[in-house]
Amino acid sequence: MESTVKNILADRYASESMKSIWSEPGKIKIERTLWIAILKAQKSLGLDIPLEVIDSYEGQLSKIDLDSIRKRELVTKHDVKARIDEFCALAGHEHIHKGMTSRDLTENVEQLQVHQSIKLILQKSVACLSKLGKLANEHKNLVITGRSHNVPAQPTTLGKKIAMYGEEFAHAIEAFAVFLERFPVRGLKGAVGTQTDQLTLFSGDANKVAQLDAKVGEHLGIRAKWDAVGQVYPRSLDFELVSSIYQLTAAPSNFARMVRLMAGHETASEGFAKGQTGSSAMPHKMNSRSCERVHGFRTILSGHVTMASNLAGDQWHEGDVSCSVVRRVLLPDACFAIDGLLNTWMNILDQMVLYPAMIESELEQFAPFLMTTTLMMEAVKKGMGRETAHHAIKKHAVEEIRDRRENAATENRLVKRLGEDDNFPLNQDELKEIVGRIHQQTGNAEQQIASFVKRVASLEQRFPEAANLKTEKIL
Amino acid sequence: MESTVKNILADRYASESMKSIWSEPGKIKIERTLWIAILKAQKSLGLDIPLEVIDSYEGQLSKIDLDSIRKRELVTKHDVKARIDEFCALAGHEHIHKGMTSRDLTENVEQLQVHQSIKLILQKSVACLSKLGKLANEHKNLVITGRSHNVPAQPTTLGKKIAMYGEEFAHAIEAFAVFLERFPVRGLKGAVGTQTDQLTLFSGDANKVAQLDAKVGEHLGIRAKWDAVGQVYPRSLDFELVSSIYQLTAAPSNFARMVRLMAGHETASEGFAKGQTGSSAMPHKMNSRSCERVHGFRTILSGHVTMASNLAGDQWHEGDVSCSVVRRVLLPDACFAIDGLLNTWMNILDQMVLYPAMIESELEQFAPFLMTTTLMMEAVKKGMGRETAHHAIKKHAVEEIRDRRENAATENRLVKRLGEDDNFPLNQDELKEIVGRIHQQTGNAEQQIASFVKRVASLEQRFPEAANLKTEKIL
Amino acid sequence: MESTVKNILADRYASESMKSIWSEPGKIKIERTLWIAILKAQKSLGLDIPLEVIDSYEGQLSKIDLDSIRKRELVTKHDVKARIDEFCALAGHEHIHKGMTSRDLTENVEQLQVHQSIKLILQKSVACLSKLGKLANEHKNLVITGRSHNVPAQPTTLGKKIAMYGEEFAHAIEAFAVFLERFPVRGLKGAVGTQTDQLTLFSGDANKVAQLDAKVGEHLGIRAKWDAVGQVYPRSLDFELVSSIYQLTAAPSNFARMVRLMAGHETASEGFAKGQTGSSAMPHKMNSRSCERVHGFRTILSGHVTMASNLAGDQWHEGDVSCSVVRRVLLPDACFAIDGLLNTWMNILDQMVLYPAMIESELEQFAPFLMTTTLMMEAVKKGMGRETAHHAIKKHAVEEIRDRRENAATENRLVKRLGEDDNFPLNQDELKEIVGRIHQQTGNAEQQIASFVKRVASLEQRFPEAANLKTEKIL
Amino acid sequence: MESTVKNILADRYASESMKSIWSEPGKIKIERTLWIAILKAQKSLGLDIPLEVIDSYEGQLSKIDLDSIRKRELVTKHDVKARIDEFCALAGHEHIHKGMTSRDLTENVEQLQVHQSIKLILQKSVACLSKLGKLANEHKNLVITGRSHNVPAQPTTLGKKIAMYGEEFAHAIEAFAVFLERFPVRGLKGAVGTQTDQLTLFSGDANKVAQLDAKVGEHLGIRAKWDAVGQVYPRSLDFELVSSIYQLTAAPSNFARMVRLMAGHETASEGFAKGQTGSSAMPHKMNSRSCERVHGFRTILSGHVTMASNLAGDQWHEGDVSCSVVRRVLLPDACFAIDGLLNTWMNILDQMVLYPAMIESELEQFAPFLMTTTLMMEAVKKGMGRETAHHAIKKHAVEEIRDRRENAATENRLVKRLGEDDNFPLNQDELKEIVGRIHQQTGNAEQQIASFVKRVASLEQRFPEAANLKTEKIL
Repeated sequence: MESTVKNILADRYASESMKSIWSEPGKIKIERTLWIAILKAQKSLGLDIPLEVIDSYEGQLSKIDLDSIRKRELVTKHDVKARIDEFCALAGHEHIHKGMTSRDLTENVEQLQVHQSIKLILQKSVACLSKLGKLANEHKNLVITGRSHNVPAQPTTLGKKIAMYGEEFAHAIEAFAVFLERFPVRGLKGAVGTQTDQLTLFSGDANKVAQLDAKVGEHLGIRAKWDAVGQVYPRSLDFELVSSIYQLTAAPSNFARMVRLMAGHETASEGFAKGQTGSSAMPHKMNSRSCERVHGFRTILSGHVTMASNLAGDQWHEGDVSCSVVRRVLLPDACFAIDGLLNTWMNILDQMVLYPAMIESELEQFAPFLMTTTLMMEAVKKGMGRETAHHAIKKHAVEEIRDRRENAATENRLVKRLGEDDNFPLNQDELKEIVGRIHQQTGNAEQQIASFVKRVASLEQRFPEAANLKTEKIL
Repeated sequence: MESTVKNILADRYASESMKSIWSEPGKIKIERTLWIAILKAQKSLGLDIPLEVIDSYEGQLSKIDLDSIRKRELVTKHDVKARIDEFCALAGHEHIHKGMTSRDLTENVEQLQVHQSIKLILQKSVACLSKLGKLANEHKNLVITGRSHNVPAQPTTLGKKIAMYGEEFAHAIEAFAVFLERFPVRGLKGAVGTQTDQLTLFSGDANKVAQLDAKVGEHLGIRAKWDAVGQVYPRSLDFELVSSIYQLTAAPSNFARMVRLMAGHETASEGFAKGQTGSSAMPHKMNSRSCERVHGFRTILSGHVTMASNLAGDQWHEGDVSCSVVRRVLLPDACFAIDGLLNTWMNILDQMVLYPAMIESELEQFAPFLMTTTLMMEAVKKGMGRETAHHAIKKHAVEEIRDRRENAATENRLVKRLGEDDNFPLNQDELKEIVGRIHQQTGNAEQQIASFVKRVASLEQRFPEAANLKTEKIL
Repeated sequence: MESTVKNILADRYASESMKSIWSEPGKIKIERTLWIAILKAQKSLGLDIPLEVIDSYEGQLSKIDLDSIRKRELVTKHDVKARIDEFCALAGHEHIHKGMTSRDLTENVEQLQVHQSIKLILQKSVACLSKLGKLANEHKNLVITGRSHNVPAQPTTLGKKIAMYGEEFAHAIEAFAVFLERFPVRGLKGAVGTQTDQLTLFSGDANKVAQLDAKVGEHLGIRAKWDAVGQVYPRSLDFELVSSIYQLTAAPSNFARMVRLMAGHETASEGFAKGQTGSSAMPHKMNSRSCERVHGFRTILSGHVTMASNLAGDQWHEGDVSCSVVRRVLLPDACFAIDGLLNTWMNILDQMVLYPAMIESELEQFAPFLMTTTLMMEAVKKGMGRETAHHAIKKHAVEEIRDRRENAATENRLVKRLGEDDNFPLNQDELKEIVGRIHQQTGNAEQQIASFVKRVASLEQRFPEAANLKTEKIL
Repeated sequence: MESTVKNILADRYASESMKSIWSEPGKIKIERTLWIAILKAQKSLGLDIPLEVIDSYEGQLSKIDLDSIRKRELVTKHDVKARIDEFCALAGHEHIHKGMTSRDLTENVEQLQVHQSIKLILQKSVACLSKLGKLANEHKNLVITGRSHNVPAQPTTLGKKIAMYGEEFAHAIEAFAVFLERFPVRGLKGAVGTQTDQLTLFSGDANKVAQLDAKVGEHLGIRAKWDAVGQVYPRSLDFELVSSIYQLTAAPSNFARMVRLMAGHETASEGFAKGQTGSSAMPHKMNSRSCERVHGFRTILSGHVTMASNLAGDQWHEGDVSCSVVRRVLLPDACFAIDGLLNTWMNILDQMVLYPAMIESELEQFAPFLMTTTLMMEAVKKGMGRETAHHAIKKHAVEEIRDRRENAATENRLVKRLGEDDNFPLNQDELKEIVGRIHQQTGNAEQQIASFVKRVASLEQRFPEAANLKTEKIL
């Protein structure tokens, strides 16, 4: 018995919509869609193809019987031929695949699979972005310890942090949308790209052949096209696809890292699906499994970028099949991986839990440190020299740090130390009042969030289908 | 004595223009440009900065004395401080760097270096494209054996082959131009991105702070900006840069491979600079050294893509310096590498030599094979069954191939074989006439070339500076 | 209906032996093997496990009923539990999985799958090497135009060329064999690597716990082990695996490139399986499809190297699952890809066809060029000055090259030119005799081949199972 | 004026020892060393080379005058020729470079640079490992909260954590040492690898030519050699080098991540060089800059792995220069990067500071959670059912977690909750006693540390020079 091995990315992580593009039946449907689009274009350019013929084919588009096709293949020993025969038998006509070479079919079908995947990825990305917009707005006033080098630096808000990742994501989405608009399909170009066979079909009318591609694209809803390709379209387009997908992973990865780090401090957790429990032996554990998985998908896609980079610029003359096995793996897997990543992120965005009390407690512990600049300013107002003030604050801060860590103090005594320093011009109460202003020290954060939320809205308008996407459950 | 090691990419391969962006003095000039732009923006928003102050700084922009700066650094122990002091001393004022943190300087300066590099790369790319356009047009009627799988397939023209690579390149250039337009700079955002320090400077006027960035960009000629960043701008932008650069390498790499392959058949050579000679021991050798070097640059840039992919999505909270050493290497080296590649390609495009007689001789040898489809068609016209004709041609073709290779025949005798086959309905003369039509069998190639040449013209118009770029000599 | 998508690498390219390691049943068998090995080790260290219990389990090793396991999982909602229950029900005992955490199972099972894959890859590599050894020996006297920069340089032999690639391959195989010997398994280390659970099982006897791992390895035939791991074994081992696999691709890729290049010159072809025909439209075409596919596998594996490089050095404390989805894809796919590559190469090595007449014809055309050094030496013997001789030869060679390419001359007339040059001291006959010696000008090639063949023999002895591997048919 | 750009990796991060290998003078010295080794080998095989000639060359080995060489190059227009002339002029003889082609020089010189770099990297790695061994031993009893998924899991010791990373590093070092032993040099093989020129030198005595390589290696202290190479040695060796270097980065990267994470919890900091202070504005900040830099080097090297992977398996026939520009960048930069990484790590290992009070405080907070398994066991001993005990503990633990996070409780009250639960059979005191045993719950950690320390000692013995390496200051 032959062993079968499933595509693990499709099987465990990808959505049904994405799988339906790349599965065997999905591919056949797209192939038939292409044949019909070509028929329509050929008809509109004067080939004698009755309208009812096209209707018959269209009526059979989704009637996909893999067993029947397989049986035909056993007879014809040719997979494309088998699929032509099946479709023609269903339609009761023999009009498809006219003047086409095998690459005229396969290159375009793969590009259509990619094209549909891009659209799905864009919608799902916008769905994630919407959730980010809502979260940012919801937490626009939740002041939190901003960290550089993973250690406390200045106060910020959680909303602003989310907007920070969100803006990175919006930039990548907009780049991806430009890519979609510019995405050119190969069209019908023949064995070495000179369109000899289509020319024959149109009795040498170069003009009609030139129009054919444009019309096929029209029927498929794709505007851009390659013109002077060889046997294959330039593989740098595959690289552009995969690297654009990779760019989409950056913001979710940064977001997921924030959650993983916050989970270590108990200021957030990625949450659990209803009914899910933690480790049975260690019930306190709430593992950031989904966030870690986001990083896993990023790693997989980084490998896909390398594969695609090897394809780009590696063409020999008009082309060959050295890219074949690569693209069979790369194109679907890259789409499955980003799909799985976005599915996972949607779940995190829906379920993650924040612990405001822990966030506030953390802020309190570091507040006097985070406010040293303001303390200095106020001391100067009271007449102390700037350098003297700086020196005093630094001395006490360093001592406090040392004490704190050596004795695991739970309370920050910098205010106390400064209050007890007779040379320092601010008293205990004044100091407390100043440090207490920390919740107002978040600069322009709110305006930045507002501007991010606006950008989200504009993308939501551009991709209205995103609103219909429901979060799909993950493993 | 300390060993010094040069940057080999800059030293051996990059152009003076590119080096001047990334050299120490180049960086200082850009830094000063930024300071002046900020001064202007701050002034226009109401800060009290006399116009003559700005004039004084502008007057000293290019007066860069590395020794003097180094001496200041020995005193201040702080490189940014030393450069501020130097510039202020030259201008006779102390107005720059107001309300700025160190990242407000460094992040933006690096982005300006990148921005200038992008513009240079675009111009140089268009210069290469122009040469491709001319070559394609020049050789639009040179019929050549089209090859798939590196073996003869169908006739095409050299002009069409060049248009094929050229179209791939045009697509990448246009993508790069979109990237330039969308390229956002970080601007003045402070330690954790909340603009606290600029807010203080503008007495809490959030509106003015928000305008500041826009105005700085205006003065620098950059429209797009980041808004809600943290300490650093998102590193996925670095990935977008490097992957877009990489995409530019595909077409030159494919072109260079064509030349390397043709050199092996003596149908082309990359040519030599005037005065250059081949190997002294082997005077017949004309090595495709420059084409090989193009492939070398591609390989280097593929490594840069991997580096950049590791930076994207690896931010911890508001940022840190784990990317620092990487970007110090990656940003200049990626720019040097693509610059070196384009310089090399310009030389190849200027100097490459074609051997039409060899090309024609190759075509002649394979002509009957390349024309089998037509032969079959004509036999059918004479009343032979399609399958019978196919069978006959195939039998003789296979025999001819075997004979040819086993006996190293120099002449293709397929026509002779078919002519002598009494069952085949075409005679020797008819067969010869048909095979002789091969120079007309290039399908739509000419129209495709024309359309490519048009696209070139449109990019030339968009980047008129490209016309001024002279080919620089290479090692 | 849910779409299913197959693992394309397994389905189209990998061998049954490799698939059986990574398929669901294959994994279960390996898991059971591990459980039994642990039982044996635990017993030998004093745990009360009757011998017949172990026998019962061993008797059920291969009785794998996926449906039954799936049904159990529906009840227990836990996949490992379901597989434990199934195996216990089959054996009629409940002794397995004692003192084990889930990672104690999964990490080791995956390492065992890898271990078996390494052994299979080694055997298949040696099988390829044997074929190389035979080919090198067979063609040790077939003189061929050696090429650097893809253009003719000096004579060599085909056997030597094969030995050149063969030596690279032997080096990689030997490195891989060292890796196998050093390959350490994680063993039973518990949740954070401290072996707390096994210690409890052995009542705190640290010594016994330390022995346990060694004994498990013994039963599995693996010597090396990790000792101080955390929850997971270091992922740099995965990188070592994948990069070692990648190293194996270099020689076959170089070999395949030679064939692809030679196919373009009609000096070789990769051959066809019996019954296979070329393109139906172009019967003369013999495409190097399999050689191109070898390059495709190399590209896929280069992406796997990037994935693995991201895993290595990315551990957070004692570990997490950010590597999980990556390793589910990476480990089987890397093994399938190298397996597919080696299968493909075996087919090429069996079927490739050389065209000695074409090789000789090529050699003849370039012979006078390849022999210029000798011509000069002989002229000097006749009394001509070295520089004068060099100058004369160079002048005629350059003219010959120019003529040849401009007129597509089919005959090399350098000998004629020199013979007609009255100043040159050698006459036509002498010149011909010297150039005729080209078949003896292959230096030390034969000795190098002999030494390579010896190295092959030594590896054949070390991996005797390789001799039993038959070439498997490919698509 | 021409802009100069420094190699940033060499200039800012690499050690003087590493720079001296790759600097211009360093390369010249190695080149001369090779020439002398060849002279000695040629003499020992019978060529007439007086001993005093060799002595004269040896006497001038380190007399490197770059200006003089440059002047010679201006005359000869040939860099190798200029260096030959210079060395000969210094020695007063003309015996070097006999029977050598240019690749016979350059390939071997580069391999010698690599060989010396490998040895230096090995020594520095062992020096780091020694520090790890000491640290592990020093902290073998420091109990710390073990974390999986970045959240508390089970107790471990800091010593064990260090041993965990240390073992990964030891494995990589040992692999690198095997690589050094197996590292083969190309030797003298001529233009296409057939050794034709050396054969001429030794009047066709193949045996002597075969011995020559072995003897050259002997003089250079390198045992292994390539035998059947073409013009270049197989570039898969470069890949083996770079991937082996990359493997060395995993353990330091994991270690650095631990420090970065611990710094966020104030349980450790990477420390400061004497005199170094933190951020002037924020005196409490102790940034893990060096640890972050370690990750930066890892990223750079991941890019180098991709470059090297593109070189391996990309040879055309006997070779060309498509790898040239790549290797000029890759070989030195990979060596500089790992050197910089190890220098940085040595500094971290010397200076890092632990905060045992913070570590203990963290442990205390999580202790009852980390001990739930034991609590359950003891409850069972007291007669409670296992499932009932599990249920009770889980209920209270989950409540405690919720309370803790919602109210930012500073004290873990699980013990209190269980003590107050009348159904739970253990009282407050008993519970405290059990949880108090946490410092003994570190399983086999001590034994694992001891075994790691032994492995360190064995590597120290094998690389005794490591003991002499002092930590070099970093920027």
